[in-house]
Amino acid sequence: MIQIPSTELDLTSDVAHLTAWLIDVDSVSGNEAGIADAVEKALHALDHLEVVRDGDCVMARTRLGRAERVILAGHIDTVPLPAAPGSRGTVPSSWDGDVLYGRGATDMKGGVAVQLALAAALEEPTRDVTFIFYDHEEVEASLSGLGRVAVSYPDWLVADFAVLLEPTDGTVEGGCNGTARFDVRVTGKASHSARAWMGVNAIHGAAEILVRLRDHEQLTVHVDGLDYRESLNAVKISGGTAGNVIPDGTVIEVNYRFAPDKTPEQAEEYVRSLLEGFDVERTDAAAGARPGLQHPAAAAFVAAVGAESKPKYGWTDVARFSALGVPAVNFGPGDALLAHTDDEHVHADAVRACLRALVDWLS
Amino acid sequence: MIQIPSTELDLTSDVAHLTAWLIDVDSVSGNEAGIADAVEKALHALDHLEVVRDGDCVMARTRLGRAERVILAGHIDTVPLPAAPGSRGTVPSSWDGDVLYGRGATDMKGGVAVQLALAAALEEPTRDVTFIFYDHEEVEASLSGLGRVAVSYPDWLVADFAVLLEPTDGTVEGGCNGTARFDVRVTGKASHSARAWMGVNAIHGAAEILVRLRDHEQLTVHVDGLDYRESLNAVKISGGTAGNVIPDGTVIEVNYRFAPDKTPEQAEEYVRSLLEGFDVERTDAAAGARPGLQHPAAAAFVAAVGAESKPKYGWTDVARFSALGVPAVNFGPGDALLAHTDDEHVHADAVRACLRALVDWLS
Repeated sequence: MIQIPSTELDLTSDVAHLTAWLIDVDSVSGNEAGIADAVEKALHALDHLEVVRDGDCVMARTRLGRAERVILAGHIDTVPLPAAPGSRGTVPSSWDGDVLYGRGATDMKGGVAVQLALAAALEEPTRDVTFIFYDHEEVEASLSGLGRVAVSYPDWLVADFAVLLEPTDGTVEGGCNGTARFDVRVTGKASHSARAWMGVNAIHGAAEILVRLRDHEQLTVHVDGLDYRESLNAVKISGGTAGNVIPDGTVIEVNYRFAPDKTPEQAEEYVRSLLEGFDVERTDAAAGARPGLQHPAAAAFVAAVGAESKPKYGWTDVARFSALGVPAVNFGPGDALLAHTDDEHVHADAVRACLRALVDWLS
Repeated sequence: MIQIPSTELDLTSDVAHLTAWLIDVDSVSGNEAGIADAVEKALHALDHLEVVRDGDCVMARTRLGRAERVILAGHIDTVPLPAAPGSRGTVPSSWDGDVLYGRGATDMKGGVAVQLALAAALEEPTRDVTFIFYDHEEVEASLSGLGRVAVSYPDWLVADFAVLLEPTDGTVEGGCNGTARFDVRVTGKASHSARAWMGVNAIHGAAEILVRLRDHEQLTVHVDGLDYRESLNAVKISGGTAGNVIPDGTVIEVNYRFAPDKTPEQAEEYVRSLLEGFDVERTDAAAGARPGLQHPAAAAFVAAVGAESKPKYGWTDVARFSALGVPAVNFGPGDALLAHTDDEHVHADAVRACLRALVDWLS
């Protein structure tokens, strides 16, 4: 049984212990001040780094004048703690043999621990390194700490390549699918349900929409050497007002996770074409990111860490770096499918292996 | 411009004036005490009637020892007042020429006025008459004043025939359709919407249900000489939990207004057969009522009032009388399609004509 470290954040301790320490500081989105304070203080103790802070986003970087600069980025917030009694993916953390349970174990206190351990371990990395620890990733995009500093301090994000330490379970995940949401509306005419022929049923009118969505063939798109699997789905439906009234309206919310060969506008065009004849309104969209693994810096990274490359299906902040012109990949410890679950956990060796790979790459 | 009568309820005044007086006493369901007091007091002044009261239900009857007894029944409550500013179907009433506007003008202060005027006008009707003025018709069935006295005072409802003075616009409406509600559920499996292939979409799974409801041919059923038009409809739908989750459940509420040749059990069987393969739960049901116009008392009534016979599509308390073994019809002033609308109104002559027809029948 590995013990949880004391309350002093020690960047030279085992990176798995460091992960447990970070989990034990509750940092649900909006409550990142405590963990940001600890991160900032620990980094200030390292003389080889410039450390600055904006809100609860902490940036630390070397200034060695290397030919290339890379960013290592991770968010310090988590989704809320599990509500179900007895859940192990909570705060404080707990160990079961070499497996560490706790909120953020995979998403992404393990990745943040790797960033911190790396910052302490490498005084003279072979590439200049910028570490970004940011707030508000698990809530609406407009609150994102990374989005905020991209506007307020664009020089923090200047680099040749970025690694986002989101969980990828030992692989390199390149790019990400985009995501767009649509409201599809059917309008009918209300009448008493005992005289239905005087109305027009807007729920029956939605049948054709659901049939097209159900029968639509989900695409898999080859982009820069990786296969991106798309998902186009109704995610919510509501219609009707009362048990004795013919419904005069139905709204279907559609979510399209589209491959990064499409812009949000092209994704919208695709959905409009599929649902032609219906009232489609786009309510939200975020562009995807091409994997960019052909970029020399990315190719060198993949070769150095010796990991398999895969596509990322979910949207991540890789897309923000991509939009800033910085090629970026996801590479971090833990299984993304455990993120946000009541059973969130990570194996100590996965965190250690990730750290080792990055130390090798930058030494 | 006809003037609204003074505050004294005068049963010998013009029946259209009486209607306006009754509208002016606000009696939204649950607030019937004031109008019940006025009705009870006015009837007590008539020596030829026995008058009793239970809660806000008032019963008055002749005891002439006639060969036949008929019930004239009406509810004294209304639905809530219109919320839209400037609505004329409200309280107090107002006149536009000979048209009377106000909440309850059609549903059914006009019918209640006819009952009261008739009670005062006929000291020696050719059939014994029981007048029932009851509360809580416009709310859930379990609160119905008529249902209450059917249990507490079954002798009040003993008769050979009943006329319910719900608005029928000068026709006789026989029987009524039944109504049943069903929840139809589709169960799926949740997953992140970026990895839809790991889940099962319960909204897409509902497509087939909506197609069957949409394509189903609505029946028209001939019962005892009248054509009952059925309505089978989805009235509500809801599904999905969040914009980034594949929905694991959808519920469709179905309302079936079925012809009175079917029992609620047969109606359920019909819906289960149509939606075979899906999870169908019956949540509510009320039997319809066969028109029973072949019954001698009913046939005599139709002949006497000289009105056309039509089927009633909506469920009314006729079904309660039918269940008690008392043949019953709807016959009252006003257009049922105006009931519950912001523009509720009735023509003075319609109320007078209804009174005249009933006076003729019982003289």
